[in-house]
Amino acid sequence: MVNWTEMDQQVKAWIMEAGAFIRESFQHSLSIQTKSNPNDLVTNIDEETERFFISNIRKTYPSHFILGEEGQGDELSSLDGIVWIIDPIDGTMNFIHQQRHFAISIGIYEDGVGRLGYIYDVTHDELYYAKRGSGAFMNDVQLPALSEVTLEKSLIAVNATWLVKNAYFDEKRLVSLATTVRGVRSYGSAALELAYVASGRLDSYLTMRLSPWDFAAGKILVEEVGGNVTALSGKELDMMKTTSVFAGAPGLHKRILTDFLLEK
Amino acid sequence: MVNWTEMDQQVKAWIMEAGAFIRESFQHSLSIQTKSNPNDLVTNIDEETERFFISNIRKTYPSHFILGEEGQGDELSSLDGIVWIIDPIDGTMNFIHQQRHFAISIGIYEDGVGRLGYIYDVTHDELYYAKRGSGAFMNDVQLPALSEVTLEKSLIAVNATWLVKNAYFDEKRLVSLATTVRGVRSYGSAALELAYVASGRLDSYLTMRLSPWDFAAGKILVEEVGGNVTALSGKELDMMKTTSVFAGAPGLHKRILTDFLLEK
Repeated sequence: MVNWTEMDQQVKAWIMEAGAFIRESFQHSLSIQTKSNPNDLVTNIDEETERFFISNIRKTYPSHFILGEEGQGDELSSLDGIVWIIDPIDGTMNFIHQQRHFAISIGIYEDGVGRLGYIYDVTHDELYYAKRGSGAFMNDVQLPALSEVTLEKSLIAVNATWLVKNAYFDEKRLVSLATTVRGVRSYGSAALELAYVASGRLDSYLTMRLSPWDFAAGKILVEEVGGNVTALSGKELDMMKTTSVFAGAPGLHKRILTDFLLEK
Repeated sequence: MVNWTEMDQQVKAWIMEAGAFIRESFQHSLSIQTKSNPNDLVTNIDEETERFFISNIRKTYPSHFILGEEGQGDELSSLDGIVWIIDPIDGTMNFIHQQRHFAISIGIYEDGVGRLGYIYDVTHDELYYAKRGSGAFMNDVQLPALSEVTLEKSLIAVNATWLVKNAYFDEKRLVSLATTVRGVRSYGSAALELAYVASGRLDSYLTMRLSPWDFAAGKILVEEVGGNVTALSGKELDMMKTTSVFAGAPGLHKRILTDFLLEK
């Protein structure tokens, strides 16, 4: 039997420790500095943070599997068993350029079902988390169930580059969507953008190409507050490969899907 | 004789007081709540905050002029004398939707020359400010002079809707720019986006239609760290009307202007 409550406490403690380590790596947490070689810095911190999680998981939960961005996890062909899906730093470009707007993202799945999800905005010390069936939270504030807004009043996130001719999706449909909604934003971290959907700060998020570790935690969070997270086709997400991702409250999700995303 | 140092202390004290008032209006500063009527809320707080600044300025500096978004300032036809250019809440849509990613923006000009600039990220308690000739800061950290990055490594902010056919600028030139740079972001607050340019978190920011109160403070900040702030034509900003705005370090600013913005 898995003790999810105990595991939840354990994961949070590890995330806080990793977050403190990352903030410390900035020397002064809010410092704005010119690094001689920012790319090396991020590679080191990314890998070191992943190593920290993986060694702790292996030690504490030896029967669990790990899927991670930095390649230190397991080679998996399914989500059978308990699988930790980890991105130590989601939003690498933001991390390098801004030392903010990046997150630690951890999703824990059991036989393909999301159980625990964590997205930690390290710089602002904001932890978004969900325990399937027990609610979603930001720090100590419970996130209410998503409320529906009309398309015309909605604030969505989609990167500008997806409104330009690209290999993944007919940009004309997204252009039409972007000019109908009330506002368009782009933060450059899929995990944070999904956390913003879960907390009602964005009404929808659409993107073309994510890996499982980019959205594994966000999917759990958004679903726990009653939202839908699918591919742009409206189909269920394939957790084992790169996929488009599209999140929002059910009514808005359906309207965007029907009116803009599906071929007519 | 104007005592700019004393005025600087005074403005900061007012901004902190206004920030605390705004945060308090959230009931719990990090709360994520569904407001019954968010539009009324923002109108009240916007107006009340502007009233707070204006009554304080009138009392303390009766000879100064005020240009403000909410219409309680003066009708001005020039920037002669000392003029306070105020936006109590820049990023209204973010304020309503997100209770974050908005800012108090105050620029103080003397005969058209920017002297003091303040952009306060209320939710995250981050004050960006500059005193002409004395440096720019975020809280207590001095912002270094902007360093140049190549176009291909740059992170820029431009809203997705400007990459779509619009009445203000040939979108094809911005599309070409957006697909050449390393990344594109959009935060929905011109003041914050200019503060991010000043602090090196964004390398450039481009937008089509701003009012003086949206960019008055940001212009002072970006210029104090050695950056350029112009219209998209490369020409000096007209401080008395709606204008496009384009900011960045001089080398990058020139390259973007020459290669993408100017008609060939």
